[in-house]
Amino acid sequence: MSQPQEPLGTFITFEGIDGSGKSTQARLLAEHLRAAGYDVVLTREPGGSPGAEEIRALVLQGDPDRWSAETEILLFTAARRDHLERTINPALTAGKVVICDRFADSTRMYQGLSRGDLRATVDQLHSLMIGREPDLTVLIDMDPDTGHARAKSRQTAEERFEDFGTDLQAQMRAGFLALASEFPDRFRIVDGGRAIETVATDVNRTVAGHLSSFG
Amino acid sequence: MSQPQEPLGTFITFEGIDGSGKSTQARLLAEHLRAAGYDVVLTREPGGSPGAEEIRALVLQGDPDRWSAETEILLFTAARRDHLERTINPALTAGKVVICDRFADSTRMYQGLSRGDLRATVDQLHSLMIGREPDLTVLIDMDPDTGHARAKSRQTAEERFEDFGTDLQAQMRAGFLALASEFPDRFRIVDGGRAIETVATDVNRTVAGHLSSFG
Repeated sequence: MSQPQEPLGTFITFEGIDGSGKSTQARLLAEHLRAAGYDVVLTREPGGSPGAEEIRALVLQGDPDRWSAETEILLFTAARRDHLERTINPALTAGKVVICDRFADSTRMYQGLSRGDLRATVDQLHSLMIGREPDLTVLIDMDPDTGHARAKSRQTAEERFEDFGTDLQAQMRAGFLALASEFPDRFRIVDGGRAIETVATDVNRTVAGHLSSFG
Repeated sequence: MSQPQEPLGTFITFEGIDGSGKSTQARLLAEHLRAAGYDVVLTREPGGSPGAEEIRALVLQGDPDRWSAETEILLFTAARRDHLERTINPALTAGKVVICDRFADSTRMYQGLSRGDLRATVDQLHSLMIGREPDLTVLIDMDPDTGHARAKSRQTAEERFEDFGTDLQAQMRAGFLALASEFPDRFRIVDGGRAIETVATDVNRTVAGHLSSFG
């Protein structure tokens, strides 16, 4: 039996520092594409599948020092593997557009940079157990002071990933911009320091160019 | 400042198929060594530290298909990293004898063999995130039919790792024996098909030879 040609969807991720507005922009893009007739799955990391959400709860709750950086990277990778197998890959195989709020680039930044120089470990683990990169990554670039003020204004129970000071936010911003230079084919940088609707229009235009190139 | 010379303990693991008696033998060895004046930490995998026990619960409970083999390997490796950092390494640094019921060899067998050929993935992940091998591994070798009958007679809530049939038990036994040939320096095979006390005497003699070579 010959393998039938599988339809292939498009995998779009949003990245950026806390308070950059990426979650809002991911949601607005999903609404925009659905209105345009696309079949869209909007998801997020860590989490995005029942198993991955359980791992998310294990990682994000409790004492900040309960896991070492290395154990945390392993747990995030386990959650990502589950999310990929149960949510992302089935949707892509069905030809859908998958929009994901954070993916492996966030692990490259937050676990790879903020708790020691573990970028090489993150990359090796990704290559061994995940492999998949997004077709398009929208980096919502944002001034760290503005981002920090925004993030602070919406405190959640998962505070331990929100209490980065502006110094670390500045380091993360520079890290994301460097990552965009490292993967220029899939990264697009959008200035998040403008009105939400202006940013959304920019995101829609960026994604439209990408989707049209897919067919 | 020069680094002080750290005392080094001895890391002993027990491996074998379900029902081989390895947990009983690990406990008896701990009692024997304590009576002989050694400072002993008796632990087990998956688990062995508070965080690793939480990961253990996540892996072992619920539907057998809730995790893919790859996600399961990542979760076990996360638990092992935590166990190593929080329990095993501190005890070894303090010069203690650590006795562990199952370690990486069980992952090499159960996840590496029983759910597809993932041994290479298990080994790469171990090399990247764990690194440490035991100083001595006692393989309690056991006829699969006897082991299966014993395991069946003590059903637990964690049944999904206990319901291997004798075919798979035979495959696991052969796998453990092959592993012992692969790592002859640290593996010692003890015949578990005898009276508990006879096996324990054999284990004590094996370990004594090893400990004396350390001190």
